[in-house]
Amino acid sequence: MDHFFKVTHLPDVLAYRSQFCRAGIESVALDAVCGRILAADLVADLDLPGFSRATMDGYAVAAASTFGASEANPAYLALKGRVSMGEKPAFGVGPGEAAGIATGGMLPQGTDAVAMVEHTELLDPTTIEVYRSVAPGQHVIAAGEDYALGNIVLTSGSRIRPQEAGLLAAFGQNTIRVFQKPRVGIVSTGDEIVPVEQIPARGRIRDINTHTLSGQVLAAGGVPVAYGIVSDDFDDLRAVCRQALDETDMVLISGGSSVGIRDFTVRVLDSLPQSRILVQGISISPGKPTILADTGGKAVWGLPGHVVSAMVVFSVVVQPFLETMAGLSEAGGKRLHVPARLSRNVPSAQGRIDFIRVRLSQTGGKLMAEPLLGKSGLINTMVQADGLIAVDINTEGLDCGEAVSVMVI
Amino acid sequence: MDHFFKVTHLPDVLAYRSQFCRAGIESVALDAVCGRILAADLVADLDLPGFSRATMDGYAVAAASTFGASEANPAYLALKGRVSMGEKPAFGVGPGEAAGIATGGMLPQGTDAVAMVEHTELLDPTTIEVYRSVAPGQHVIAAGEDYALGNIVLTSGSRIRPQEAGLLAAFGQNTIRVFQKPRVGIVSTGDEIVPVEQIPARGRIRDINTHTLSGQVLAAGGVPVAYGIVSDDFDDLRAVCRQALDETDMVLISGGSSVGIRDFTVRVLDSLPQSRILVQGISISPGKPTILADTGGKAVWGLPGHVVSAMVVFSVVVQPFLETMAGLSEAGGKRLHVPARLSRNVPSAQGRIDFIRVRLSQTGGKLMAEPLLGKSGLINTMVQADGLIAVDINTEGLDCGEAVSVMVI
Repeated sequence: MDHFFKVTHLPDVLAYRSQFCRAGIESVALDAVCGRILAADLVADLDLPGFSRATMDGYAVAAASTFGASEANPAYLALKGRVSMGEKPAFGVGPGEAAGIATGGMLPQGTDAVAMVEHTELLDPTTIEVYRSVAPGQHVIAAGEDYALGNIVLTSGSRIRPQEAGLLAAFGQNTIRVFQKPRVGIVSTGDEIVPVEQIPARGRIRDINTHTLSGQVLAAGGVPVAYGIVSDDFDDLRAVCRQALDETDMVLISGGSSVGIRDFTVRVLDSLPQSRILVQGISISPGKPTILADTGGKAVWGLPGHVVSAMVVFSVVVQPFLETMAGLSEAGGKRLHVPARLSRNVPSAQGRIDFIRVRLSQTGGKLMAEPLLGKSGLINTMVQADGLIAVDINTEGLDCGEAVSVMVI
Repeated sequence: MDHFFKVTHLPDVLAYRSQFCRAGIESVALDAVCGRILAADLVADLDLPGFSRATMDGYAVAAASTFGASEANPAYLALKGRVSMGEKPAFGVGPGEAAGIATGGMLPQGTDAVAMVEHTELLDPTTIEVYRSVAPGQHVIAAGEDYALGNIVLTSGSRIRPQEAGLLAAFGQNTIRVFQKPRVGIVSTGDEIVPVEQIPARGRIRDINTHTLSGQVLAAGGVPVAYGIVSDDFDDLRAVCRQALDETDMVLISGGSSVGIRDFTVRVLDSLPQSRILVQGISISPGKPTILADTGGKAVWGLPGHVVSAMVVFSVVVQPFLETMAGLSEAGGKRLHVPARLSRNVPSAQGRIDFIRVRLSQTGGKLMAEPLLGKSGLINTMVQADGLIAVDINTEGLDCGEAVSVMVI
């Protein structure tokens, strides 16, 4: 027990992130890049678009040729031809002239705007009337208006969404340098735990944590590697830890809410080569009995055995480590927090951060967060939950109606 | 053009969802279930947990044996033995008795609570003192307290998160029946479009929409199947559409913001066997010139060519169709909307829903949504954006400071 009297505050735990290695770099195809984290800045090697394009169907003109045009007093322009899609126009357009153009077409030399087809009339094969004046640049995307040659378009450490994938395509990136996904070993401990395929005898329960943690690792951009269930045996746990450390970048040992098991996990971690226990207990609830060791430069976690505690600790503690390892930058890694109002009072103890499960609901145009208070061994409270709120270390509780910030889980 | 004068309102477009088939059913392994949509209710075939479990280390007791216990006046209990983890205790515990137990251990017959080890003292090998009374059920999870035998645990149509994966594990579901991921064919049209690996000649641009739409299909739980770029040729587009309809469950044709191309897409869709045009234009912006056809029971979409328009239409129109096909229930499919305040005025036209890209930022504890007004051909506005807000069809604009609901993209 003694160890757990000197708990570490959460910000101090998170500060240890910097001492673990960042993942290596690999190349992936464009169609596999979504969700990955960019490992190099993308610099515009051309103007996007490379030429001035029409954004409407109509006529490319020098805007000045239409100034003063109205229904009563249209501008008459001589039609020089039609721009073919995907072609550089072979002709120029002078004052008093126009050229037919479709959306996406390249503006001919001498033009700087497009008169919408709806505001024109074709009088004869070589003459149009324009009923409304257009301003220079109107209905046009200028060369380089989206991104200009030489500018940084995407920075290393950003996560690729569909729009960034499109941007990579626009700049011809068919193969992209991204950070490798960190491999995370997951070990379940406990003599009472049986695998999913077994019917648990009285006194035993099926392994849940391997599956919740694997899902969380996947969702956070890692690759879960499950090492199954290890009984409460020093040599067995030590052997599995060594194997997991050989094969993965970070190890999660779940189980060990019980005092004896906690000490046991600490002893196993202490016994590993080049191992240093960094954290034995965090001033959060649930999740206080969390252990963090640096074992040969890899983070090894002893997570609580209660399913809710293990999930909360993963979400608020382990995930930031995983994301840092995965190359996500601070800017690229902002986690979505949803503002809401508490639907009832939440009690909380001072001296620790309480993470409360909440369910979100829309009530009269307001987003309400309903606290789900329940034992941390009950998975149903996580199944009902949409997110977590943090009750600060110096706060004794929150009142009904108070503004909270919900971390979506 | 005529077609597009009779635009359809968004709710009427979304109502067509019901006429398209739901995806088939397949089995996946537990470790691949996250993100999938359950195709059958899960009913508890046992109590979870199957027995009363300790949630703390200490002594299992009949709570009544501790009533009135205090520091000054402890209860003295006879120690009957220790519960082995994962075993059904071979002994019972009567009034005035106790048994050592660790977190997760099974309560012996005759006990209904656990006295925390911190509130006890071992006097001799057969006697403990208890300094605090415990209530019945304290530090215990009762049999069936998480889920009771026979109850519906998860309903068909819910999306599996890590906590639901854990729950499936708890009920021994190693192989899970889920809806198949809908396959979505993606066709890019336009004589000006070149593949990513080409350096675009003057007047041409690389294909962006295939990649943004593929990413969106993936993120929405579908499988994108790219059919490449088709030139503006009736027979070519018709042939590719037929192939895509043979091989996939839904088809997206992007391109065709231009009037001529729009009509051309309509003509191609009209010419396909068992094809009926349902929608030619939606009262939204961007995205008005969207086409929807029912072709032999499959949805075929003509999406605008501008990258922002195509992404917005996907997000607000196509995705709900995809999710319905994918088996997601209304309850299981609630999309996250984040409440925020507008950082400045947004103009908007009546008679249509305007979807405005916004960037979220935290300012003085408040979440602000900054409108990103820009041409719908500029992908940078989507790269800067965190979400979309909808300005209602009867609203002329929104004021700075107004409450908005941001759909995260």
